Amino acid sequence: MLESDEAQRVMVTAHSVADAARAAILPYFRQPGLEAENKLNSGFDPVTVADCAAEQAMRAVLAQQRPEDTVVGEEYGTQAGTSGLSWVLDPIDGTRGFMSGTPTWGVLVAVSDANGPLFGVIDQPYIGERFWGGLGQSGMTGPQGARDLAVRGTRGLDQAVLFTTFPEVGTAAEGAAFQEVARHVRLTRYGMDCYAYAMLAAGQIDLVIEAGLSNYDIHAPIAVIEAAGGIVTDWQGGPAHQGGRVIAAAGEEQHRAALEILSRVPLD
Amino acid sequence: MLESDEAQRVMVTAHSVADAARAAILPYFRQPGLEAENKLNSGFDPVTVADCAAEQAMRAVLAQQRPEDTVVGEEYGTQAGTSGLSWVLDPIDGTRGFMSGTPTWGVLVAVSDANGPLFGVIDQPYIGERFWGGLGQSGMTGPQGARDLAVRGTRGLDQAVLFTTFPEVGTAAEGAAFQEVARHVRLTRYGMDCYAYAMLAAGQIDLVIEAGLSNYDIHAPIAVIEAAGGIVTDWQGGPAHQGGRVIAAAGEEQHRAALEILSRVPLD
Repeated sequence: MLESDEAQRVMVTAHSVADAARAAILPYFRQPGLEAENKLNSGFDPVTVADCAAEQAMRAVLAQQRPEDTVVGEEYGTQAGTSGLSWVLDPIDGTRGFMSGTPTWGVLVAVSDANGPLFGVIDQPYIGERFWGGLGQSGMTGPQGARDLAVRGTRGLDQAVLFTTFPEVGTAAEGAAFQEVARHVRLTRYGMDCYAYAMLAAGQIDLVIEAGLSNYDIHAPIAVIEAAGGIVTDWQGGPAHQGGRVIAAAGEEQHRAALEILSRVPLD
Repeated sequence: MLESDEAQRVMVTAHSVADAARAAILPYFRQPGLEAENKLNSGFDPVTVADCAAEQAMRAVLAQQRPEDTVVGEEYGTQAGTSGLSWVLDPIDGTRGFMSGTPTWGVLVAVSDANGPLFGVIDQPYIGERFWGGLGQSGMTGPQGARDLAVRGTRGLDQAVLFTTFPEVGTAAEGAAFQEVARHVRLTRYGMDCYAYAMLAAGQIDLVIEAGLSNYDIHAPIAVIEAAGGIVTDWQGGPAHQGGRVIAAAGEEQHRAALEILSRVPLD
């Protein structure tokens, strides 16, 4: 853990970084003529002008306020620091949602050490909503003002609401395991990008299951959800901050029951 | 068409009806302990307290301002009028989204005559966004202020972004036809409820394809999308305001190419 003064400084900077991203991105949201390019040869993963502008703005804040920390970002890679703390940034998580005009994408900011995330922010600039947690704090602000964050707690899989981004989750084996969990829950919904993690922390849903994640996709959600009382692990029940296969749960019963199914998928 | 003064009065009332629903619903959104009951013996279609409170509030506005018009609502059925105009109301379209805390549900208000919708409103109370169109008007207001609505226009299916609410669209035959369209588009996304129609009217996406709709699900979207220059039909290219199978398109090319596939599904 960080000393209390240092924790306070880190949290203030995290909010400043999210503010900078919000300001950089919003002018581009829903504007015609967004430039997109295929980052991967297969699949559709547009990098917008907004994505790059936002990461530059976020890095500028960190260069000024936290020059000794490492910075890891989706667009511009890793800049090594000396402090032992790393800022893990995803300026626009959910670029497909962004390109479709839906307010389901988010800015992800995390502060992590070698053991994983310490503090995280999930920000939805268009709605004006922010969810944060870690270092002894958690909360949200949005159109209805400020609120505490707390997961809904333990309940059976048959009562659970499950989210993921695409029906085709990961590989064929991963997708089959996801669908097996989906057959046991009350409701499965799609298309929320990182907003699903925020809804879990806010006590609205029970499970988020994804595969093929990068570390910058999951650091901030881990911090926010754990601070709200939830559980985030990989599909074997181990730490999830390296990315890959992730399950987030609002309580032990949902987590255990889903893991029973997911853990049968052989490791890659 | 309505006389200009009458059209103006109708539009003002439509916004008042949406305002009343917004005020009735918001106190319940994301509150713990929402009561839900299964309306259908099969499937999950929660009716929230908010849904009923909102439709009562909407009907109260109409009883005062438009006592001679017919009112058709999802929760309280049809109250026949004498004017030839009908108000078609869905207080919360997307109750599953509502129950999950996602801002993808909306209030739908339409004014229709025997030939279909004349004017419609799609309102997202939590974001504070409203989309409207018909009677010579169209527009939106939201966090970024007021904007015009205009669809993105014609383009090939291979460039199209397609939305629907659930991967399992309607019956097996309907679902297979949807998936065949999905194989030809650039991107398919799920989970947006009526918000997808608003995104189409706002020029963000190309296609929304659904099946098994009720009339109150689609009257308002038809009015808004047509006013923004888009096309809404059933899967045979005919009028869609009775509900059932619906395709909304941002241009003729997407519409024609998708219809070529969808029209092969036999009528029920």
